[in-house]
Amino acid sequence: MKFEKLALIGCGLMGGSFALALKKAGMVNQVVGFSASEGTRQRALELGVIDVIAPSAAEAVQDADLVLVAVPVSATQATFAAIAPTLSAQTLLMDVGSTKCDVVAAAMATLGERLPCFVPAHPIAGKEVAGVEHADPELYQNRQLILTPLPCNGLRKITQAHNVWEALGSQVITLTPEEHDATFAAVSHLPHLVAFALVNAVAQQPDGADHLSMAGPGFRDFSRIAASDPAVWRDILLANRTQVLLQSALLRQALDQLETAMTEGDASTLEQLIAQASQTRAEWRLGGLDPDLVTQP
Amino acid sequence: MKFEKLALIGCGLMGGSFALALKKAGMVNQVVGFSASEGTRQRALELGVIDVIAPSAAEAVQDADLVLVAVPVSATQATFAAIAPTLSAQTLLMDVGSTKCDVVAAAMATLGERLPCFVPAHPIAGKEVAGVEHADPELYQNRQLILTPLPCNGLRKITQAHNVWEALGSQVITLTPEEHDATFAAVSHLPHLVAFALVNAVAQQPDGADHLSMAGPGFRDFSRIAASDPAVWRDILLANRTQVLLQSALLRQALDQLETAMTEGDASTLEQLIAQASQTRAEWRLGGLDPDLVTQP
Repeated sequence: MKFEKLALIGCGLMGGSFALALKKAGMVNQVVGFSASEGTRQRALELGVIDVIAPSAAEAVQDADLVLVAVPVSATQATFAAIAPTLSAQTLLMDVGSTKCDVVAAAMATLGERLPCFVPAHPIAGKEVAGVEHADPELYQNRQLILTPLPCNGLRKITQAHNVWEALGSQVITLTPEEHDATFAAVSHLPHLVAFALVNAVAQQPDGADHLSMAGPGFRDFSRIAASDPAVWRDILLANRTQVLLQSALLRQALDQLETAMTEGDASTLEQLIAQASQTRAEWRLGGLDPDLVTQP
Repeated sequence: MKFEKLALIGCGLMGGSFALALKKAGMVNQVVGFSASEGTRQRALELGVIDVIAPSAAEAVQDADLVLVAVPVSATQATFAAIAPTLSAQTLLMDVGSTKCDVVAAAMATLGERLPCFVPAHPIAGKEVAGVEHADPELYQNRQLILTPLPCNGLRKITQAHNVWEALGSQVITLTPEEHDATFAAVSHLPHLVAFALVNAVAQQPDGADHLSMAGPGFRDFSRIAASDPAVWRDILLANRTQVLLQSALLRQALDQLETAMTEGDASTLEQLIAQASQTRAEWRLGGLDPDLVTQP
């Protein structure tokens, strides 16, 4: 499988890594890039992530057989609107957004007769650091990739989308957009929300800085995702807020159970609740893989 | 600094690592060990963590110039009571407990005239896996070590305690027991409590197993501490419950702030709250060290 021209709209960490991975796999002849920021466009060119800078998103996608929209979730709809007129019916269009119901709604509102080109995608990969400087051709290797195809996607487009990501080393899973958003509210958006809350709760108290200076490796790993990009996570938490708030309510219930056992000095219930969590986590494997085989990001 | 005889009461991960580290540093002639479990005693001997098995804790500490009590927090008081009659005034006695006010209370209730021997210690180190099999002579290297000396400790004992841990590569910090328990409620006990709650909240819902199968690297790191030993954490959360419940209330307030911004669609407040957390976490360093210099556990 080889593409003549990839149009990369949004040349940050996710998009840049996709371009580098395609190049490394010899799967693309030319990468034309556009980013809202002039500085990002220039850096992407200098780093060899893209071969040519396009003057606009609309011009970037002209004659492209593959388009990846890798912009912040809140910019997706405007990007779709900008490229819809110059997209061809033969193009495979994908995104990398962490939420899917809102992206599908944006596509339906803007892509018109090009809607069948769009196969929504979400790679379960990332780093806390943003920016094209951190783009990494291995980012998608040994990672799960969720596709949430639309009813109007032809089998050919879905297969093509599947094959691209598999060629980059991803394990492809298909869900509905609703299943996707419920799943990631639970296992990604909620942990981020809670990590933000915990870091703020500790830092805001009078002795917060002293407390933090003595935090150990447990805190380091627990709070790693709290360093994530504020604009990206603002968009995700707003786009998927119904599901995230539902998951947060479930978390508060589970916290209530533990706190009640502590308050009542009920050691046996407390140990049982911790043992449930401990066993679940000890048996969990990233993407079903042995964690020792998976590179630390 | 060299000790003639280390008595190790509790030959698990923490105690075993201490014995191995002392041996590696050439700081001890003989390690006599006692554990409640016959199997642990035998494994510790086979693995060379201890040189001799003592028939009881009381007999282990006889003629020992260094005693480390590394038993579950809930067993500390009984252990102190058992060894008090055979301790000598020259002995340096330390523990490795994750809570300090309760350990100090246990010492005051049981050690009698040997109370000045006891310098409470808490190494900020550990692994999710328990047991002497995982004992590691490097466990305490480049880690912080908190001492919470008692008013009755002489300067000689405090200096000796300080020097032992420093020789093992730890950075020694002195706090009051109260400061210690407030600090670790915030940066260790609360993250554990929340990680237990989140894993239970996700696992208990009808699609929990499916959700977990798609969790990524963010979830992996956030939830790593949820795999911790249930008996150990039952004891810690009960021993320090007042401080932990106070910290949990602060967490719920910080969560309320984020959720209100989500519910109200207040993108600017939401981004600001996330940016606070993100900046705090991005600037945080483990023990003030560059995280790249610190080995992943």
